[in-house]
This record gives sequence, structure tokens and C-alpha cells, in this order.
Amino acid sequence: MNVYEAIENRRSVRKYEQKDIPMEVLTRILNAARLAPSANNRQDWKFIVVKDPELKKKVAEAARGQSFVGEASVIIAGVALNPEKLMSCEVPAYAVDLAIAMTQITLAAVEEGLGTCWIGAFDQAKVKELLGIPAEYKVVELMPLGYPADKPRTKIRKRLEEVVAYDRFA
Amino acid sequence: MNVYEAIENRRSVRKYEQKDIPMEVLTRILNAARLAPSANNRQDWKFIVVKDPELKKKVAEAARGQSFVGEASVIIAGVALNPEKLMSCEVPAYAVDLAIAMTQITLAAVEEGLGTCWIGAFDQAKVKELLGIPAEYKVVELMPLGYPADKPRTKIRKRLEEVVAYDRFA
Repeated sequence: MNVYEAIENRRSVRKYEQKDIPMEVLTRILNAARLAPSANNRQDWKFIVVKDPELKKKVAEAARGQSFVGEASVIIAGVALNPEKLMSCEVPAYAVDLAIAMTQITLAAVEEGLGTCWIGAFDQAKVKELLGIPAEYKVVELMPLGYPADKPRTKIRKRLEEVVAYDRFA
Repeated sequence: MNVYEAIENRRSVRKYEQKDIPMEVLTRILNAARLAPSANNRQDWKFIVVKDPELKKKVAEAARGQSFVGEASVIIAGVALNPEKLMSCEVPAYAVDLAIAMTQITLAAVEEGLGTCWIGAFDQAKVKELLGIPAEYKVVELMPLGYPADKPRTKIRKRLEEVVAYDRFA
């Protein structure tokens, strides 16, 4: 499938089949994150793949009890190893870097017939504790990954004219 | 080209041909950003496409004088309209949202035979002034977009084993 098809087919999947992801598929998807660009190519990141069923449940509880998160085949936690660094434009590099890598996961997942969901609603300290992540690092997003069991819905988006301007903010 | 090919072929392009991008191509690429997910589907973003040659030069000057930025066919400025909002995980939603949308631009560009580069080194206030962006908004990244005129180099990345852990940070 080409990039545009993957972008159109990507959606937030909130129900997953109880089915394991073959290791070679998971590896290809993680590799898509690994290849992402980052500020000064620092790659200050770690992707923790939560497979253990009990641990998945606990992580889901720490994500405001969104139980579907724990029902995915795995949950990927995107961890920033240098969450203090600001770019000179005053935007935190860590959030941009991790979001680029995890976007590549979402699109690779579509290519593999898998689904994902961006989860930013979780207890930072609790997730760190559950996954043994040192205090100085930061979990940017949690991302369940698995075979979709729900039906696609229509994407609701602003029109292009609303989000694009030429040469000057308008 | 499939998603993996696009991810492998995406690279930081720092030299561009002097060649216009057909409007239909540019529209498809911007649409890839428009379709991106965002926190609570707020889509608090605006993409300013800088086409004017003099303005491109000035923006490049505000990007630490990186002149190649001004030599691309266009420069896309990704603007966050709600840069204060933190997700409950304590990560700024705006940086993640804009990075997702702009990652989709980078991969759509590869699909179209175009190149991009993430530019986070720029003077926030100066770019806002040049593009007429209200003070309360924030430019997350600048992204030159055009036909590549330089040669691909080998991607240097950490090994997968260095960036992936299972169930526990390691």
C-alpha cells in the first residue's frame, strides 16, 4: 500500500483481536521507529514493548483505566531519554522526536494490517514505576498495537482551506 | 511505494532543485498533514506554505542563516494554535500533534519524489513576525520542501537492540 493509502487508513483502534503479532512483523514495525529522524540525530529514545498480560492490564489501569489498551497484543511505550532539551525555537525536542518515531509505527502498522491508538492520558509516575523507567526520563505516549476488531469510522477533519495558508498566517 | 520504502528513503535533504511543485502535488502533501490524528481530534494547527522568494530568504535568515532552507520550492511552517495544553501525562500536546502531521508530510513527500528537512533551529519571534503569526501561537518546525539535488547518504542509526526493550526498561 502506498503512503497515502496508509495515511487514509490509519485510525484510532479501540478494540483488538486476541491474537499474537508474529515476531518478524513486530520487528519490522519497531524498525520503522528506529529509522526515524531526530534532533541532531541523537535518537534519545527507547521503545518498551509490553507483552506480559498482567503488566498490560496494570499499564491500562494507569492510563485512566482505558481497558482496551490492555487488550491489545502489545503496548509500546515511547520513552524520551533527554526530556529537558529545548530546540532553539523553544519547542521541546523530545516530544517532537518521539512523535515522529511513533507516527512511523502507526503507518507501518497499517501496512501490516495492524491498528494503533495514541494514548496521552496516563499517569506518568505510575507508568514509569510499572516499567522500571528511571525518574529522569519521560514517557511521551503509550501505543497499543494489535489486530483491529472494530469497524472503521469516517475521519472527521477540518477542510484543507481551514488549515493551510500561503505566505502569511490567515 | 509502500510505507517501509518511504520510511527508508526519507532523509534530510539540504540541497534543492530550482523547480516548482505542481499545485496538485502540493495539495496531496498538505492533505496528508490534514488527515493526521491529534489530541482529542482538536486539529489545533495551521500550515503556512511560504512560496514568495523574498520571504523564503528572510525565513531562512531567521533559521540561523541556513540558506538551503530558502532555496527549497516552498517552506512549510507548522503552527500550533494551542501551545499551552498539556496532556495528562504531562507532555505538551501541541508538539506531539504537529510532529505527527509533519511526519506525514515527510513521507508523502517521499512518495512524490520530493525531499524535506526538519528545521528546529530558528528564532521563534522572528519567524512569527515574518509570517504574521499571532504571539499566542507557536511555530513547532519549519520544513523546506522541494526536489532533492543532493545525493542520499547512509542513515546512521542505533541498532534495534539498543532502542527496544521488552516489559521493562533496560
